[in-house]
Amino acid sequence: MFSSRSEYDRGVNTFSPEGRLFQVEYAIEAIKLGSTTVGIQTSEGVVLAVEKRTQSPLLESDSVEKIMEIDRHIGCAMSGLTADARTMVEHARVTAQNHVFTYDEPIKVESVTQSVSDLALRFGEGANEEDASMSRPFGVALLIAGIDHHGPQLFHADPSGTFMRYHAKAIGSGSEGAQSELQDSYDKSMTLAQAKVLALKVLKQVMEEKLDHNNVQLAQVVPEQGYSILKPDQLHEIIAQIEA
Amino acid sequence: MFSSRSEYDRGVNTFSPEGRLFQVEYAIEAIKLGSTTVGIQTSEGVVLAVEKRTQSPLLESDSVEKIMEIDRHIGCAMSGLTADARTMVEHARVTAQNHVFTYDEPIKVESVTQSVSDLALRFGEGANEEDASMSRPFGVALLIAGIDHHGPQLFHADPSGTFMRYHAKAIGSGSEGAQSELQDSYDKSMTLAQAKVLALKVLKQVMEEKLDHNNVQLAQVVPEQGYSILKPDQLHEIIAQIEA
Amino acid sequence: MFSSRSEYDRGVNTFSPEGRLFQVEYAIEAIKLGSTTVGIQTSEGVVLAVEKRTQSPLLESDSVEKIMEIDRHIGCAMSGLTADARTMVEHARVTAQNHVFTYDEPIKVESVTQSVSDLALRFGEGANEEDASMSRPFGVALLIAGIDHHGPQLFHADPSGTFMRYHAKAIGSGSEGAQSELQDSYDKSMTLAQAKVLALKVLKQVMEEKLDHNNVQLAQVVPEQGYSILKPDQLHEIIAQIEA
Amino acid sequence: MFSSRSEYDRGVNTFSPEGRLFQVEYAIEAIKLGSTTVGIQTSEGVVLAVEKRTQSPLLESDSVEKIMEIDRHIGCAMSGLTADARTMVEHARVTAQNHVFTYDEPIKVESVTQSVSDLALRFGEGANEEDASMSRPFGVALLIAGIDHHGPQLFHADPSGTFMRYHAKAIGSGSEGAQSELQDSYDKSMTLAQAKVLALKVLKQVMEEKLDHNNVQLAQVVPEQGYSILKPDQLHEIIAQIEA
Amino acid sequence: MFSSRSEYDRGVNTFSPEGRLFQVEYAIEAIKLGSTTVGIQTSEGVVLAVEKRTQSPLLESDSVEKIMEIDRHIGCAMSGLTADARTMVEHARVTAQNHVFTYDEPIKVESVTQSVSDLALRFGEGANEEDASMSRPFGVALLIAGIDHHGPQLFHADPSGTFMRYHAKAIGSGSEGAQSELQDSYDKSMTLAQAKVLALKVLKQVMEEKLDHNNVQLAQVVPEQGYSILKPDQLHEIIAQIEA
Amino acid sequence: MFSSRSEYDRGVNTFSPEGRLFQVEYAIEAIKLGSTTVGIQTSEGVVLAVEKRTQSPLLESDSVEKIMEIDRHIGCAMSGLTADARTMVEHARVTAQNHVFTYDEPIKVESVTQSVSDLALRFGEGANEEDASMSRPFGVALLIAGIDHHGPQLFHADPSGTFMRYHAKAIGSGSEGAQSELQDSYDKSMTLAQAKVLALKVLKQVMEEKLDHNNVQLAQVVPEQGYSILKPDQLHEIIAQIEA
Amino acid sequence: MFSSRSEYDRGVNTFSPEGRLFQVEYAIEAIKLGSTTVGIQTSEGVVLAVEKRTQSPLLESDSVEKIMEIDRHIGCAMSGLTADARTMVEHARVTAQNHVFTYDEPIKVESVTQSVSDLALRFGEGANEEDASMSRPFGVALLIAGIDHHGPQLFHADPSGTFMRYHAKAIGSGSEGAQSELQDSYDKSMTLAQAKVLALKVLKQVMEEKLDHNNVQLAQVVPEQGYSILKPDQLHEIIAQIEA
Repeated sequence: MFSSRSEYDRGVNTFSPEGRLFQVEYAIEAIKLGSTTVGIQTSEGVVLAVEKRTQSPLLESDSVEKIMEIDRHIGCAMSGLTADARTMVEHARVTAQNHVFTYDEPIKVESVTQSVSDLALRFGEGANEEDASMSRPFGVALLIAGIDHHGPQLFHADPSGTFMRYHAKAIGSGSEGAQSELQDSYDKSMTLAQAKVLALKVLKQVMEEKLDHNNVQLAQVVPEQGYSILKPDQLHEIIAQIEA
Repeated sequence: MFSSRSEYDRGVNTFSPEGRLFQVEYAIEAIKLGSTTVGIQTSEGVVLAVEKRTQSPLLESDSVEKIMEIDRHIGCAMSGLTADARTMVEHARVTAQNHVFTYDEPIKVESVTQSVSDLALRFGEGANEEDASMSRPFGVALLIAGIDHHGPQLFHADPSGTFMRYHAKAIGSGSEGAQSELQDSYDKSMTLAQAKVLALKVLKQVMEEKLDHNNVQLAQVVPEQGYSILKPDQLHEIIAQIEA
Repeated sequence: MFSSRSEYDRGVNTFSPEGRLFQVEYAIEAIKLGSTTVGIQTSEGVVLAVEKRTQSPLLESDSVEKIMEIDRHIGCAMSGLTADARTMVEHARVTAQNHVFTYDEPIKVESVTQSVSDLALRFGEGANEEDASMSRPFGVALLIAGIDHHGPQLFHADPSGTFMRYHAKAIGSGSEGAQSELQDSYDKSMTLAQAKVLALKVLKQVMEEKLDHNNVQLAQVVPEQGYSILKPDQLHEIIAQIEA
Repeated sequence: MFSSRSEYDRGVNTFSPEGRLFQVEYAIEAIKLGSTTVGIQTSEGVVLAVEKRTQSPLLESDSVEKIMEIDRHIGCAMSGLTADARTMVEHARVTAQNHVFTYDEPIKVESVTQSVSDLALRFGEGANEEDASMSRPFGVALLIAGIDHHGPQLFHADPSGTFMRYHAKAIGSGSEGAQSELQDSYDKSMTLAQAKVLALKVLKQVMEEKLDHNNVQLAQVVPEQGYSILKPDQLHEIIAQIEA
Repeated sequence: MFSSRSEYDRGVNTFSPEGRLFQVEYAIEAIKLGSTTVGIQTSEGVVLAVEKRTQSPLLESDSVEKIMEIDRHIGCAMSGLTADARTMVEHARVTAQNHVFTYDEPIKVESVTQSVSDLALRFGEGANEEDASMSRPFGVALLIAGIDHHGPQLFHADPSGTFMRYHAKAIGSGSEGAQSELQDSYDKSMTLAQAKVLALKVLKQVMEEKLDHNNVQLAQVVPEQGYSILKPDQLHEIIAQIEA
Repeated sequence: MFSSRSEYDRGVNTFSPEGRLFQVEYAIEAIKLGSTTVGIQTSEGVVLAVEKRTQSPLLESDSVEKIMEIDRHIGCAMSGLTADARTMVEHARVTAQNHVFTYDEPIKVESVTQSVSDLALRFGEGANEEDASMSRPFGVALLIAGIDHHGPQLFHADPSGTFMRYHAKAIGSGSEGAQSELQDSYDKSMTLAQAKVLALKVLKQVMEEKLDHNNVQLAQVVPEQGYSILKPDQLHEIIAQIEA
Repeated sequence: MFSSRSEYDRGVNTFSPEGRLFQVEYAIEAIKLGSTTVGIQTSEGVVLAVEKRTQSPLLESDSVEKIMEIDRHIGCAMSGLTADARTMVEHARVTAQNHVFTYDEPIKVESVTQSVSDLALRFGEGANEEDASMSRPFGVALLIAGIDHHGPQLFHADPSGTFMRYHAKAIGSGSEGAQSELQDSYDKSMTLAQAKVLALKVLKQVMEEKLDHNNVQLAQVVPEQGYSILKPDQLHEIIAQIEA
């Protein structure tokens, strides 16, 4: 199979004899090179946590955006190619704004997820600036967290254009261990506070460096306040809890 | 023949010396990697049943849509690439809505099937967003169930752009065993209730996991009420019958 | 010659050193994989007969259209890829309707044949939806039967864009034997009734299954009534004759 | 040279190191696979004669058009791919009609020849329906016969876009022997009647089958009457002469 | 060098590691396969002479145009692919006519030469009908002769888009010998009559056949009368001189 | 891995099986061939310093722009392909001007950085003049220094479309040693004057030639005055300090 | 490295693993095949000198333009492909004219240089006639000499789109020796007259033929008079000086 593979994986959008799309599978590999990202949904809201690999002490770590706001009530965390994520999030923001403008109500979390997944599926189709589609698959996966009239929700969107809703999900280089830890510890009745502690515990387990307030970031989407990134002191407090 | 095959199967839309279109055949292989899906037509209505492979206990299984509404009187079940199915179903929905808008009457089941088959045939022809055609064949097959003035109908549409009407049809990884079971047990005079039981029996036979209300989904299209997905309690009742 | 062939047959529309167009020849191979189809022209009208390979007892065999109406006075039978035939027939129907609309008279049989042959020739030329041309040759041959002021006529159109008029013609997997039988038995003075019997006799000879009213279909184009598919009882009667 | 050839002949429109255009040369090979066609110009008019290979007794031989009218005063005979010839002749007809419409006088024979040669040269240049150009060279050669104020003329147009005027010219599979016979027997002072006899004599010599009124066709372009295909009885008479 | 060459010469418009454009060099080879053409400029006017290879006694040799008028005061002779020359000359004619129409004065000889050289340079740049550019280099060289207010001039334009002014120039298969003879015998003070004799002498030397009035053609561009092809009796007279 | 690499790195925008984009990685190599460039941000302003390799004593070294103004309050330094940098800076300037024109306020430093990063990401997407995107990745990295209401900032933008904010950053051939030196010596509380000395010290360490006022250039962005290149005497003074 | 090179240098615009653009480097090789060209800037004006290789005594050497006027105050000299230079200079002229038309003042020398460098950078980006960009790099380098309110200036523009200002610069086949001679002999305080002598001395040294007034050309751009090519007698005088 391996030798025949080399004949199919170069076409950007071609099926192999086994019915596989190799370029999409390789783009998914790009995500496994990315930093670990975790999302947990509770009845009180959704938590997103990311590892921020320290590249240089001279780097202004705030400028490495791995968690981003899409709309007041929707945020997202990424793993994979940073520049690709920026394009997808920009597309999501415009979609969300257009929705408000047209219907005078916030966009549903699933609708915004579907719009980035449609964008992901369209690669290789005569890309142009307006619709932001690309000549290759996007090398990024997103965890999209939000709250609408269906309550708090967490979606996972990947380069194949597939999206699914999860109670808790990990992506990136440490996703295998992280997801298994989530499976063991997640409880539907857990509070938002407990979810924050679990998110950091999971990251801690898969990070090579010692977890501290500089190399992780935590965001929440809760009713009323919507999306926000936790401040350093809030982060400190939670880190203290997991070290206890 | 096998060695010469490698020379023809890379062109997206090229005949081999034997008159075959390999990329379309490979897209059909993608369907054989998908979960099993069954459709049964009776004089009282049409039943669609799908296996929902449990990927993770943390996955919100409702978000994995393998059965979808096209219009009030038409539903469809899929096997293959989820994202491709979403594109085809979206195309079918728009076609159905346009029909109502233009002619003020519901679209025929065959017309909506033909519209997705025409879309499937058009791959590789300068894709653009409006008509949703793609630069590769769609890696998905659909079972389209509906009711119009010709009565209840079940159609099968595949990546080659071919569609046919069936009394009962299975697609996906377990389709071979499932279709043979349908052939043995299907009876034109069976009731809708009997068809539901048969659909689940067939799935049970080909599923690796033990069938329960979490890993299957059942939908029906009946006169008056049209398309609906069965509720958990309705599903429980039928599962009870096949376990009896 | 064979080794050099591999260098030319991958280009969609390229001559080999011997002056051959391999992709067109391979598309013609696709027709030889199709079911056998027979057409016979008499002074009273034209008969079309097709083999309907039984794929599954659960298949609604009426949904496998191998004989189709183009206009009230023109019908056609196909062999090869079903989806391609649908595109060509749709093109023929639009051409016929446009003719009536523009000139207020039915289109000539030859004109409608030429329009599908022109479509076949144009493959690989920047396909777009309006003119239905494709990025590869059509993998289908048509027998077009009709009546206009030149009387009953039968045309054969193939993937190369060539069309010719025949008194009697067979295409598809059993075409070789069928054509030779037609040559032996066809008589210009035969009645339409005799032509129907001959058409089924020819099919019977080349079909692997036993011919019955389920696996063949018969259509006629006669003055006044125009195109019609024979009803089961009419078919029964003719089958009775050939079994006598 | 042969080994290096394989590197250049696949590009549709590329020079080889020796300055040759292989795809055009291969298209010319396609003509050598076609039936033999002869044209003879006299001071009284021009004669065109073609071999009609009998493909099947059931073929309506009138439907195989190898001699076609371009305008009242211009006809043409072809050798090579029938469908390609149809496209070129259709282009010639439109050009001729446009000329009459614009200038209110019949088009010159040379002008109509130049228009099909320009079409032949333009292959591979973003073909579109209006100007009928193709993505490969045309696989057909034409003998264009006509009369204008320069008197009777015979032109030969080939796939390279080159055209030349001849007193007498043969193309197709038997062209070598036919041209040599024409060279021996042609006489500038011959009558039209003599030219008809010579044309059939030349065909007779190169045809494998015995020449009769079914497998040859003869057309003439003469002052006043213009283009016409000879009727069977006229053909009989001439065949009688060459058999005498 | 030769082995690496094969890697660069297939791209239509690509530099080799040595900075060479092979497709243009190969197009120049196509000219070396063409018949020999000579141009000589004197203070009294310019002479163009071409060899007309006798292809067949039945060919109307007047229809093989190797010397063509561009405008009343400009003519040109070609060597290489006849059909390509027709396209370039047509472009030159349109350019010349547009100039007269816009500026109400005859175009300069250098301007018309530059316009065909610009056309030659533009190959491979999305050819379209209006500007006549092609998807490969033109396989033809032109000698453009004319008279404007700078006096009589002779230009040479080749497939690379380069043009230069010459006192006397030979192109085509016998150009090497012919150019060397021109170098030996040309004299700036020679009369037009002497130039005509020299042109034919040079052709005679490189032609395989015996030169006579059928296989050469001579044209002149002189003040007042402008461009004209010499009549047979004028040609006879000059041939008599060189045989004397 | 290395042998398989050769199969993936030629597609301009294709993932390798490991999820890598080789053409982007190779473009980053182009930067490592460029001269060393250093940027240092302090609370008083930002410093940019570049090495100007002396190519020839006859070169007007002022014409080699490696530090350029984007707007009154933003400057940038480059390493890599000079011509690519010019395109990116031109794009940045237009973006900045459009911002002032539309919003009547200076553009934010991050916004201008994002606009060049978006441009970098879009390569290979049907480039056109207006948006300046290219058919290959840009072979250049930029250090963008500016001051807005967030205070002095330094951004690094690379060919992958990724940008990050740094306190101090080195790019180009000597970047490895330079960055390590910056890490050792940078202090958040350092003055602008100290930053200038540090910048030159770092360059001195990695330059092969002896640093003098001819082969380095220094620019600053400070509140009020904005962007300016240091004059020779200012440069002299600082060089004197590091030599002391 | 050499073997891997062959895999990258065929893409028109692709980086090699070392970050190099081979097609641009090969275009630069094309310049090294061209004749030597020298430019020298003084405070009194700029001198351009080119070698005119004698190709044939019959060539009108004035028609080989290697020094061309761009505007009244700007001239340029080229080395490489003549036809490419014509396109670039034409582009420069139009840019200069547009500037005058729009701003009513002569264009700056640097602006006109930047416009041809931008054109050079844009190759391979969907070329079209208006902006004159090409499907390959330009195979030509230019020395652009002019005078504006910054005084006399000399720019060098190469196929990579890079341009730099020089006091004195040599390009073409003999550029290595010529540049080294310029380095030794150039003096910022030299007069225009001295620069002319130096330019010819440098050419003399690298030319294979004996330098005379037929095989070199000299132009100057001075205040007031602007651009002019030196007349033969002026050239004679300078040649006399270097032979003295």
